[in-house]
Amino acid sequence: MRTLTVDLAERSYPIYIGEGLLSTPGLLSQHIRGGQVCIVTNETVAPLFLDLLMAQLGEYQCTTVNLPDGEVHKNLETLNRIFDGLLEKRHNRTTTLIALGGGVVGDMTGFAAASYQRGVDFIQVPTTLLSQVDSSVGGKTGVNHALGKNMIGAFHQPQCVLIDTLVLNSLPDAELSAGLAEVIKYGLINDLPFFSWLEDNIEGLMSRDPETLAYAIERSCADKAEVVAQDEREGGIRAILNLGHTFGHAIETEQGYGAWLHGEAVGAGMVMAADLSARMGWLTDEDLSRVKRLIKRAQLPLKAPESMSADSFLAHMAVDKKVLDGQLRLVLLKSIGEAVVTSDIDEAKVRETLAACR
Amino acid sequence: MRTLTVDLAERSYPIYIGEGLLSTPGLLSQHIRGGQVCIVTNETVAPLFLDLLMAQLGEYQCTTVNLPDGEVHKNLETLNRIFDGLLEKRHNRTTTLIALGGGVVGDMTGFAAASYQRGVDFIQVPTTLLSQVDSSVGGKTGVNHALGKNMIGAFHQPQCVLIDTLVLNSLPDAELSAGLAEVIKYGLINDLPFFSWLEDNIEGLMSRDPETLAYAIERSCADKAEVVAQDEREGGIRAILNLGHTFGHAIETEQGYGAWLHGEAVGAGMVMAADLSARMGWLTDEDLSRVKRLIKRAQLPLKAPESMSADSFLAHMAVDKKVLDGQLRLVLLKSIGEAVVTSDIDEAKVRETLAACR
Repeated sequence: MRTLTVDLAERSYPIYIGEGLLSTPGLLSQHIRGGQVCIVTNETVAPLFLDLLMAQLGEYQCTTVNLPDGEVHKNLETLNRIFDGLLEKRHNRTTTLIALGGGVVGDMTGFAAASYQRGVDFIQVPTTLLSQVDSSVGGKTGVNHALGKNMIGAFHQPQCVLIDTLVLNSLPDAELSAGLAEVIKYGLINDLPFFSWLEDNIEGLMSRDPETLAYAIERSCADKAEVVAQDEREGGIRAILNLGHTFGHAIETEQGYGAWLHGEAVGAGMVMAADLSARMGWLTDEDLSRVKRLIKRAQLPLKAPESMSADSFLAHMAVDKKVLDGQLRLVLLKSIGEAVVTSDIDEAKVRETLAACR
Repeated sequence: MRTLTVDLAERSYPIYIGEGLLSTPGLLSQHIRGGQVCIVTNETVAPLFLDLLMAQLGEYQCTTVNLPDGEVHKNLETLNRIFDGLLEKRHNRTTTLIALGGGVVGDMTGFAAASYQRGVDFIQVPTTLLSQVDSSVGGKTGVNHALGKNMIGAFHQPQCVLIDTLVLNSLPDAELSAGLAEVIKYGLINDLPFFSWLEDNIEGLMSRDPETLAYAIERSCADKAEVVAQDEREGGIRAILNLGHTFGHAIETEQGYGAWLHGEAVGAGMVMAADLSARMGWLTDEDLSRVKRLIKRAQLPLKAPESMSADSFLAHMAVDKKVLDGQLRLVLLKSIGEAVVTSDIDEAKVRETLAACR
């Protein structure tokens, strides 16, 4: 087992990474302070891992909330089903919520924990590659609104993150690729050696070699933890973690949540950010090709849907959280391994990128 | 104008109290950091004060969200209407929400501000006595769930609280009394001299003498600010502010939100807490009579609805937030001016109190 720490003073917490951690006795209970737990999961994940997890929780009053699967359900209405379960079983302020699932389950469970009785503990047990390397770490929680993704939420850090690499064996190929989009992101934004390592090891990752996957997960979590420790509430540097996400969110919102996997939209979005960075004169053509090549080898889309116009892109991007006082801000690449947040953006160049990447 | 400070380190903020503050230029704008504001109000308050407030906000992009009036609407569905308004008008992370209304508007606006884009600024402009002396100060925000009051929310401190005592002239008598319940509470829990002052001045308050009201508001806010500064997130001492609330919430939940005003339920609840304190041997019979007398002079109910059984009371109280690991905890009175939180409770005595106070 590997252990990383997200360093946030009194809100610091460990990330455990290893094979079979779901079946390791005693790992969870040291992070549960009361006598009640509530496992939030979904109908896809529950048949696979719920019994394994519950076997570790025999000593607690244990409630299960089983949500429908998919980003389309990540809203206030589904969130309320978690509160229903907690209140029906009279969970009190010392309860601990456990998110067993992917990013949607983790984001909703975290927000439910942030707001149930104005804040209770929670634990992340991510079961997709994407949630293991990204959404389970860093305390961003929330739900979508019909008019924008992740517009309602809270910063709420978990008590621990438990990553069992065995669960990836049952992950569909498309979701493995979606997770690799966020892995590649860490290389692009501030870890050139990791980007090079990914170029050398992408086949091992695609074929799910356990050691290769475990290393990529650990390195990704370490890279993310370092950024989060510097800027927990995204006042500045943390925004670089959104590379490709402004373009990606526009795709997800326009297509309807769930039509594209989040990681797929981020994959295409990172190509668009790299394309625009090249048009700014920052990335060389060879760098842009390297980015595209790696994203393609991860079997991620390189382009947005042909049906999306530049105007609809720009309208969605205008409502993105990174817009400050009406000014569009984007994460772009000075080079591979160095991201910057900039509002010095030429709309004509953005339109060229949008035209080139559909 | 009187100014108090709620002392919470980097989250400290001023409370302004005075006649005509809604029409005082420049008071609000020093607490608005962006170019956007969103006033959240309701259909009762808007015709009275919205124009006055908007006249001070000419320099900002100003959105108004007009909610239906009443505790019955304090839920996730109504909360979402605030998010609708913010997103339709593309409010960004530097926006400031302004709550113009009573406790329901303040609690919902505060929670909307806590969770919109994971946290934006807000300002409280309370327009009822109850919200001026209680709910607008201290950062508790949230909505109700069908199974429990204030079960979903956040701690989120405002940028400032602006209390214009002129608005009380249009307040219905029942709401004036409801506010006085919370005023009396401060005397009971930790301010015996204030309790005595209230015994001497209750007629002046009931007849809305401006100076008498202004003093009661200032003293109440100062008492509350002192408790909140010691224990922002209610880990301990802050719980004494809930005197009468566990009994009161049971009444509100059983009767359906809105059937009783919150302050009315707290009034009866404080009598019940005092009655139980007398049965514990803490309050003398004379003290209990003093409590009842003052609450009666404020034209507040002294008893719960006759239809409520002891069992239904106990069932509602079991789900109250102050229940820790299945143990009922109540705020009781050691004497007038000294509240304690205790879990050392004899259910037989609680049943005697419930029988005596219906």
